[in-house]
Amino acid sequence: MPFQHGKIRDMNTSTIAESLELPAPILMDLGTGSTGEDTRIERATKTIGQMAHVFLDERARSLIGAETAVYSVEYWRPVAEGTEGGLYWGNSTIYPGVVGEEYFMTRGHFHARRNRAEYYSTILGSGLLVLMDERRHASVQEMRAGTTHYIPNGIAHRVVNTGDKPLTFLACWPSDAGHDYTTIDEQGFSVRVMRKGKYPQVVAQP
Amino acid sequence: MPFQHGKIRDMNTSTIAESLELPAPILMDLGTGSTGEDTRIERATKTIGQMAHVFLDERARSLIGAETAVYSVEYWRPVAEGTEGGLYWGNSTIYPGVVGEEYFMTRGHFHARRNRAEYYSTILGSGLLVLMDERRHASVQEMRAGTTHYIPNGIAHRVVNTGDKPLTFLACWPSDAGHDYTTIDEQGFSVRVMRKGKYPQVVAQP
Repeated sequence: MPFQHGKIRDMNTSTIAESLELPAPILMDLGTGSTGEDTRIERATKTIGQMAHVFLDERARSLIGAETAVYSVEYWRPVAEGTEGGLYWGNSTIYPGVVGEEYFMTRGHFHARRNRAEYYSTILGSGLLVLMDERRHASVQEMRAGTTHYIPNGIAHRVVNTGDKPLTFLACWPSDAGHDYTTIDEQGFSVRVMRKGKYPQVVAQP
Repeated sequence: MPFQHGKIRDMNTSTIAESLELPAPILMDLGTGSTGEDTRIERATKTIGQMAHVFLDERARSLIGAETAVYSVEYWRPVAEGTEGGLYWGNSTIYPGVVGEEYFMTRGHFHARRNRAEYYSTILGSGLLVLMDERRHASVQEMRAGTTHYIPNGIAHRVVNTGDKPLTFLACWPSDAGHDYTTIDEQGFSVRVMRKGKYPQVVAQP
């Protein structure tokens, strides 16, 4: 059956004497990441203007319209932030583009609670997942449709779109993981992904 | 880019002076659930012969070939069972069929650690997710392509295929959730999903 947004049919549950109030499912098209109009889903977009000092070339960034979208996120938090044993579900889309010779990418973060893992699974597009531990040892993994990445305890993660189409992936992470953006804001990653000619190259952070 | 199984291209990471050993990604086709031949993925199939006393009609079950597959699971456990803060990723396929007038379904389980949640996201097919708390209060949610279900703390879960094609969903759950199959083996769910004419009906467990 092709994917369609819309109301999820109510079952006849009149025979359930004691029924249970639980979060109703959301709809997410696993072929595109689209979540439709569900108001329970939180949405945010990060623009060029909001990404000061993330990319290497601040002058190149200043020449791009401040409102240009670099990436968007959508996520569903059915339980309160900090809940032990709960999970969150979402997707991110990094748009194609460069700042100077550096590809569009996410800010990247550690989890505030370091021993919390995460999955990313690529829906559309192509890019690189940049991973780094607290000693600043780094690794990159190719992302393309179907690649499913385990981000272990203690590993900062950033996604770089090296293609010419949007890169969309889904994510699942613990509701008590939290986000530490500050460490990356202050220290960056130890590698950057630059466009050299037509191809991405991973280079040590100058 | 269409999905293709195969080796994930190694990036030239020669410029990463201090590189990091992390689990390489797996490939899972989000359009079909297929995971190819990766030996890190564990696989198991549950047959009619292995599901004594799960369905209502044991005589009907005895008339079906014992080797008939009811459902299959595939899962990736990149960290040891019981690891705090880690996650597992997998898929399940429930085949179409009935035992008497009861649709093929999973055994169902609570998590051993009750305050551990799980996500299910439907890839293909149609069915019902049966949910029940420890007071035996129950709820059902329709599953079809894209429905993404949050299974909260303390909720037993079972998937019923009410369609005529395989029902495949992906799942993500904490590596310290564990499985408690015994409670359901002994007490069952408080509702069953039966075929009445051509349509599913949720009925109280007799």
